[in-house]
Amino acid sequence: MSLDQPASKPHERLAAALQDDLAGVNALIRDRMASRHAPRIPEVTAHLVEAGGKRLRPMLTLASARLCGYEGPYHVHLAATVEFIHTATLLHDDVVDESQKRRGRPTANLLWDNKSSVLVGDYLFARSFQLMTETGNIRVLRILSDAAATIAEGEVLQMTAAQDLATDEAVYLQVVRGKTAALFSAATEVGGVIAGRPEAEVKALFDYGDALGIAFQIVDDLLDYWGSDATGKNVGDDFRERKLTLPVIKAVAKADAEERAFWSRVIEKGDQGEGDLDHAIALLNKHDTLEATRQDALAWSAKAKSAMLSLPQSDLRDMLVDLNDYVVARVS
Amino acid sequence: MSLDQPASKPHERLAAALQDDLAGVNALIRDRMASRHAPRIPEVTAHLVEAGGKRLRPMLTLASARLCGYEGPYHVHLAATVEFIHTATLLHDDVVDESQKRRGRPTANLLWDNKSSVLVGDYLFARSFQLMTETGNIRVLRILSDAAATIAEGEVLQMTAAQDLATDEAVYLQVVRGKTAALFSAATEVGGVIAGRPEAEVKALFDYGDALGIAFQIVDDLLDYWGSDATGKNVGDDFRERKLTLPVIKAVAKADAEERAFWSRVIEKGDQGEGDLDHAIALLNKHDTLEATRQDALAWSAKAKSAMLSLPQSDLRDMLVDLNDYVVARVS
Repeated sequence: MSLDQPASKPHERLAAALQDDLAGVNALIRDRMASRHAPRIPEVTAHLVEAGGKRLRPMLTLASARLCGYEGPYHVHLAATVEFIHTATLLHDDVVDESQKRRGRPTANLLWDNKSSVLVGDYLFARSFQLMTETGNIRVLRILSDAAATIAEGEVLQMTAAQDLATDEAVYLQVVRGKTAALFSAATEVGGVIAGRPEAEVKALFDYGDALGIAFQIVDDLLDYWGSDATGKNVGDDFRERKLTLPVIKAVAKADAEERAFWSRVIEKGDQGEGDLDHAIALLNKHDTLEATRQDALAWSAKAKSAMLSLPQSDLRDMLVDLNDYVVARVS
Repeated sequence: MSLDQPASKPHERLAAALQDDLAGVNALIRDRMASRHAPRIPEVTAHLVEAGGKRLRPMLTLASARLCGYEGPYHVHLAATVEFIHTATLLHDDVVDESQKRRGRPTANLLWDNKSSVLVGDYLFARSFQLMTETGNIRVLRILSDAAATIAEGEVLQMTAAQDLATDEAVYLQVVRGKTAALFSAATEVGGVIAGRPEAEVKALFDYGDALGIAFQIVDDLLDYWGSDATGKNVGDDFRERKLTLPVIKAVAKADAEERAFWSRVIEKGDQGEGDLDHAIALLNKHDTLEATRQDALAWSAKAKSAMLSLPQSDLRDMLVDLNDYVVARVS
């Protein structure tokens, strides 16, 4: 899968295959983001929900339920739940990170204010829990509330672990599970649970979502030092924001005293000047940590693929395999 | 019930009667506010949870379940859920209102930062949903997720309706339900539901919580213009924060052109100077809106009492009746 075949991107083929279900999810989202009493809520939500996100997470739920042969109506509720949790998280993230842009547009906290972002995020969290109770399935409620707790815990951990050179790969993995993988794995797992599939298949769906999410985030963090215009990433953003991501964590682990002093100055103290980003990249290359990070991403991706291939063959299964290949294609 | 008999305050007698259950709630709260990965979470939570709140809302759940004859373990989970939702709401409120003090101590957003308050609040919301799924009772999940949505909606409504003279008593009631009554009524209703009581009793518990919460908030808003040192309220806080509460809404409805211009200047434009608070209070007295507001509080309190008295007699029932009397005693 290469970047110059846009018509055959796996998430576009998934969207085509799940067209009717996705239309149901979009209708449900529009319906539930309404508020009889507070028109500010749908304004803020629409700004984000209709900003052209790929609906990747709800598609994971829809595809997982469908490839398990689910014929009921509740995969649509669960997919909308997952998108609401994701949207609420983005609203709160942009407040916490004081972000100005999201998906190429000004953030809600900039267009309205932090208050609106906090409170509308809370509303969407509550709405997401209302939506999942409609399924009447306690196990999916447990999976999704566990995911919500892991997400919040990961965000707090990231906030306190960032800018601290003692952060190791285990902490990084925990943060990545919170930021990305917990919702991916919940999205796929609930698809299998709602379809009533055997535990081994539910576990395979969880493993796929977990590993896909981790690979996805590692690739994202890698491209922050390795990107080009083609990847749409702005090289050095994480460095300037003093985020300790995997390539740097690996370089800090191998640093001599002088290099450690450099990382301490630019990351812990935030004292950055001209040439520091270039020097940081030189250190990553010296210790070959970009390549080591790439190998980690490929290993997680292989794990995701193997989990998905353990399920019975179907078109949707193969599209999820392709989606996983696509995630790491940017660094292959 | 008068203020100078502290040993016989109804919430203290409730706490004594529910001593063992409350110990269970406190143990569960301490257990669930822990975080294996992010020690910031229990730090922030403990600051608020252990700051000596009265545990009023969890006591409503415990008392409701017990007076319904409930013998199982889950009223403790539901009481802890209610306290977590309340705590999460306080954390986010203090960010939104940029508050400096809560329960006589510096707020979490001041001691740590807004980020911590937003994210730890999210964590407690997620934890509260985990707790309630443990009851395995879909109906209580629906009641509590509906309450969470009403709370968030009420907060957004308050934010947009504040400083707008078009705000009428219906909007005020909606805001008050969101701020206070929705969690009170959910707290009492789930007590009856978990005990498996007939619909009429569940409805009476809901009505008690709803009316108690509304009376509670109206009294609070009234004391902001009518308070003294004895009530612990700081007269004029709402005025200075340009909050449109019931006494002012009633005065605006009766205002002539000149009075309307005054309210527009001090509330809508926020242009306040020396003597404005005194003039505002003079206008409230001119139109007798403090007395009208007091009558509304008494009417809601009477509704709460009548709902509670429709339930079979028991010591706990009578303590909840006393609690209701106590809430309005400050303005009786």
